[in-house]
Amino acid sequence: MGQRCTAGFGAPRLEPGDTPAYNPLAMSLAQSTLELQTTADTDIVDLTPDLADFVAAAGIADGLLAVFVPGSTAGVTTIEYESGAVADLKRAVERLAPRDEHYEHNLRWGDGNGYSHIRAALLGPSLTVPVKDGQLELGTWQQIVLCDFDNRPRRRRVLLRLLG
Amino acid sequence: MGQRCTAGFGAPRLEPGDTPAYNPLAMSLAQSTLELQTTADTDIVDLTPDLADFVAAAGIADGLLAVFVPGSTAGVTTIEYESGAVADLKRAVERLAPRDEHYEHNLRWGDGNGYSHIRAALLGPSLTVPVKDGQLELGTWQQIVLCDFDNRPRRRRVLLRLLG
Amino acid sequence: MGQRCTAGFGAPRLEPGDTPAYNPLAMSLAQSTLELQTTADTDIVDLTPDLADFVAAAGIADGLLAVFVPGSTAGVTTIEYESGAVADLKRAVERLAPRDEHYEHNLRWGDGNGYSHIRAALLGPSLTVPVKDGQLELGTWQQIVLCDFDNRPRRRRVLLRLLG
Repeated sequence: MGQRCTAGFGAPRLEPGDTPAYNPLAMSLAQSTLELQTTADTDIVDLTPDLADFVAAAGIADGLLAVFVPGSTAGVTTIEYESGAVADLKRAVERLAPRDEHYEHNLRWGDGNGYSHIRAALLGPSLTVPVKDGQLELGTWQQIVLCDFDNRPRRRRVLLRLLG
Repeated sequence: MGQRCTAGFGAPRLEPGDTPAYNPLAMSLAQSTLELQTTADTDIVDLTPDLADFVAAAGIADGLLAVFVPGSTAGVTTIEYESGAVADLKRAVERLAPRDEHYEHNLRWGDGNGYSHIRAALLGPSLTVPVKDGQLELGTWQQIVLCDFDNRPRRRRVLLRLLG
Repeated sequence: MGQRCTAGFGAPRLEPGDTPAYNPLAMSLAQSTLELQTTADTDIVDLTPDLADFVAAAGIADGLLAVFVPGSTAGVTTIEYESGAVADLKRAVERLAPRDEHYEHNLRWGDGNGYSHIRAALLGPSLTVPVKDGQLELGTWQQIVLCDFDNRPRRRRVLLRLLG
């Protein structure tokens, strides 16, 4: 398969007695919250510009960005953010959990968004993306998206943790 | 969309000259990139041996390995890497996003890989795996796999971050 | 369910006056393992109370919790943990990978759980959740669940890493 492990291993931990005091290897944490308004009916929102801004401003060159959406009717993933692929994803989640299927959740709460819960559970609420030189290491045509599956407009928060 | 980046950035890194010195509890970061050649038509590749090598060499005993594939037509997950389960997964993603379905992405770009984008978005590009004593804490029959859904052979990179 | 939080917490943060060298910015790592008994036939278990206990006890106010299930027939995600939505998710994964479909894995091993492997691979074994002020930053109606898809009762471990 021609796999090989390229260079770039991180430096090892410092040992007791090492000087000087400054430890360039110590990691730190930056955190932030995006707030956004979504529309109903499977709103797929490109978060990449805001995430890139956060990463650039955080002062952590190399590390890992963790993205999380609170709530049980939304998820996060990546896709090429062009209108065709976005429309295709909407159709795909309609096959995965059709809106008009029978959902027991609807019998309990009457809010008619049983399909939203299933789509969110299957897509998942979290994602981790590497950061290098203060930039997200995404593919050229790869964007980070929030998928809001709920059947009404929502005010959403997206929680960010950058470790590095 | 009314997005905005709220406050809450973490504290900056220590600067040279800061005291005091060695902190045995401080975490560190190791990073690497796997490079591999895939074949067309849903190539499912076992990354576990290369990932285990990276973790063993990184000098971080306990922590978390984050795996990420750049690009919008591939994903990562875990599976028992035997030919039967691998074939079953290929059939399952064909049900999830059939190759010959109508995709608007195909109308836009004409590269015929609309199904690849949907499979990748649904599977997701990232995974985190615990590390203990310099080893991946996987199940006995659990392997970490790259799923390349594209319809042509690709040169892929898989990005690794080990925090611990 | 017989869950219990085993030992293995990471070292607490250093306190001022500790030697050597208090570093208030250094990150630390806490780790633990949940152990639980599942039933057969798509057991969906709410892990949230145990995870919240671990996070509260770990002494790390702000950071990221990584959840991982070893094994190739289980996954983790979030859902509103009420009986209707849980039943809906079970039906959805039955559509995703029907139990009585043909699976090549079954021909190899004869244990009849080919569908479990596919459901697990599609859902994924890992999740990351932000922590703030010693608490999981979940939505009000969002719980973290283990989905055991195997066709027999299993003793499961869920591995936790808290970085912050």
